[in-house]
Amino acid sequence: MIDQTHDPKRQSWVDSAGGHSDFPIQNLPLGVFSVGGEGPRIGTAIGDYVLDLKAISGLLPTEVAPALSQPALNELFALPTKARKALRQRLSDLLSDDRHRADIEPHLHPVGDCRMHLPARIGDYTDFYVGIHHAMAVGKLFRPDNPLLPNYKHVPIGYHGRASSIRESGVPVVRPKGQTKAPEADAPSFGPSQRLDYELELGVFIARGNALGQSIDIADAPDHIAGLCLLNDWSARDFQAWEYQPLGPFLAKNFQSTISPWVITAEALAPFRTAQPARPEGDPAPLPYLSNPADQASGALNIALEVQILTEQMRSQNLPPQTLSRSSTLAAMYWTIAQLITHHSVNGCNLMAGDLLGTGTLSGPEKAQAGSLLELSDGGKSPVTLDNGETRRFLADGDEVILTARAEAEGFNSIGFGQCRAQILPAV
Amino acid sequence: MIDQTHDPKRQSWVDSAGGHSDFPIQNLPLGVFSVGGEGPRIGTAIGDYVLDLKAISGLLPTEVAPALSQPALNELFALPTKARKALRQRLSDLLSDDRHRADIEPHLHPVGDCRMHLPARIGDYTDFYVGIHHAMAVGKLFRPDNPLLPNYKHVPIGYHGRASSIRESGVPVVRPKGQTKAPEADAPSFGPSQRLDYELELGVFIARGNALGQSIDIADAPDHIAGLCLLNDWSARDFQAWEYQPLGPFLAKNFQSTISPWVITAEALAPFRTAQPARPEGDPAPLPYLSNPADQASGALNIALEVQILTEQMRSQNLPPQTLSRSSTLAAMYWTIAQLITHHSVNGCNLMAGDLLGTGTLSGPEKAQAGSLLELSDGGKSPVTLDNGETRRFLADGDEVILTARAEAEGFNSIGFGQCRAQILPAV
Repeated sequence: MIDQTHDPKRQSWVDSAGGHSDFPIQNLPLGVFSVGGEGPRIGTAIGDYVLDLKAISGLLPTEVAPALSQPALNELFALPTKARKALRQRLSDLLSDDRHRADIEPHLHPVGDCRMHLPARIGDYTDFYVGIHHAMAVGKLFRPDNPLLPNYKHVPIGYHGRASSIRESGVPVVRPKGQTKAPEADAPSFGPSQRLDYELELGVFIARGNALGQSIDIADAPDHIAGLCLLNDWSARDFQAWEYQPLGPFLAKNFQSTISPWVITAEALAPFRTAQPARPEGDPAPLPYLSNPADQASGALNIALEVQILTEQMRSQNLPPQTLSRSSTLAAMYWTIAQLITHHSVNGCNLMAGDLLGTGTLSGPEKAQAGSLLELSDGGKSPVTLDNGETRRFLADGDEVILTARAEAEGFNSIGFGQCRAQILPAV
Repeated sequence: MIDQTHDPKRQSWVDSAGGHSDFPIQNLPLGVFSVGGEGPRIGTAIGDYVLDLKAISGLLPTEVAPALSQPALNELFALPTKARKALRQRLSDLLSDDRHRADIEPHLHPVGDCRMHLPARIGDYTDFYVGIHHAMAVGKLFRPDNPLLPNYKHVPIGYHGRASSIRESGVPVVRPKGQTKAPEADAPSFGPSQRLDYELELGVFIARGNALGQSIDIADAPDHIAGLCLLNDWSARDFQAWEYQPLGPFLAKNFQSTISPWVITAEALAPFRTAQPARPEGDPAPLPYLSNPADQASGALNIALEVQILTEQMRSQNLPPQTLSRSSTLAAMYWTIAQLITHHSVNGCNLMAGDLLGTGTLSGPEKAQAGSLLELSDGGKSPVTLDNGETRRFLADGDEVILTARAEAEGFNSIGFGQCRAQILPAV
């Protein structure tokens, strides 16, 4: 039951929303922006414009108006799914029907005039590890004899990350300092990370949460997904190798994580839902609490992913960003988002509206689909050669990493995620 | 330079603040309470009373008045240390000098009439692992051949915990459900935890934070400590053993953590600071960023800790809680709080006012000093026998765990932390 907001024939009177825009009228993502000295407010992206939803809230469903006057999306995410569906329906009508143009147009701001902010107050951030090919590749480097641990195919492995250091696309990343110990060294040393890396992930914003002590049944989990963004989980591999046992990554990850500013809503992603690829022969079936026929049938997503790099030298040579890898959710994800949400809450842990889940690095099975330099360079052993002759084992100061994504399905307009990008600054 | 707020001869005109009260006039902890249908507000504990600091803010230093009108301590914690010192000085004067009694007394509420709340909005919660005897004991159970990992004496090991599920003392804990796999089983199973445990920890509330990309020098770290509380880091040992590799504990811990409601301020704890015990012969010196003569000389704390249990059967027999173990910060902590703060921020990770750090389980070297049932029962192999004949390998439904603490130093009035207690409810 795909509604008319997904009709590929529907077009916006905003010209730039046509063609291959990330933000056609079928997308209508949610974000928080500021323009011209005004405070942060909620908007949607349409073509090359940001539409101020607070300013037009009088034209929008009354059930969402109070939440739209907030400077973050938490309150809107906490509303029942049908409220966000009504908002989407109305925005689609307003932006496609020429008769509303005069009312709407004054509240469209060229995206270049806008500053984007974090879309929500992120209470807690959890990072999962659903990319089985990444888990295998990294496992081989950290534990050559034991790459995929026995729990991996039973437990959607996850851990808590740092919420305070999540930043929106565009905020530079200062190269972190910390402890490392080379395997052959007698003692650890301290200094800037020499193995700074990116990780290609998707972020999931939680819609309404669950009460402490209650859990979310897998059949209900889709209702708890507000939408998705891109997530770069920057990682200092040298710190990680030395610190991660026995309690997991800490300073290797918590210096910063970057997300794309637009939340691609669960409603916008509906046409791109698809069957979860069959588990390889011999893999165990998930335990009953993680099993659901509907999730099996349509709980996966078809999203193409790409990583690009733009180095200081490329910039001085006026070269465009170069693609490092292309992957996809279908190639990478061993668990669905619904399985992550249900697992996270099965012990009674309370998720809150605006919480962020990371999927983990979404590497496909092929080297060209690797979602990190660690994988592309075989743990730093085989440098990647760029088109201009530069080589990279890990990231250099001045490097900018750009993540992009596009949801695709036959018979539908594809929709983009915008960019998740940030540049590495030297250690202080 | 101990100021008169610590003078053991100073007494309050509130009678119940004398004797062995946890809250003599030398304590003056900060907390958030509500009484009689009013909203949460900031108070201090004196004897058996809670003093409403919002109501008397006109008598308090002007620099703290706006922060005292908030329903949480974050704004007060974010102020410079000298503002909290001025507040303490003034409160000590008001509550010791009889002339202020008429102004103050109407705003004293019997503690039994008050409901305590979480003292701050906890943005991020990090749990450390500074109890070396706990790390050894648990390491032996999880990794018999490799109890203390090579990084332990170099890196103050920590990981991110769940902020949303932290609750104040008194909120019951629902026994969590989750995946477990017995070593001999072919496949994991799902159900209520059979190895539910407590962990005796201290919590540290962060005062002012640091900017992203900046770090906190160890010489400055004490200025970032707002105060301490008790923390019970409830743990499902069966979930933990199965899930914790390679990214650390997750559902084994995040179903709930309990803290005592009063923040024992860094200022109140000043007389109980003492030299960090010398590292055992042969242990490596900390790296320079974690080394500081002042921290060495006075960065440790002398706090006595105790765990009690009150079972359903004891309650029906009208028995009082029974002590399970007694420990102390001096016996347990391998790292100082300043070392934790500096390590946490050394990579540029931004701490925020109101963030909570856990120390990790504070077990001493002796069995009678163990801070968890896992240790007391040798991983469940040797049940603990209670005075009434009951036995415990792990916690049973109905059990209530009570943590208490007292800072002690010769020549000073000791001060208490109040209680951190909660009862286990059956799985839903």
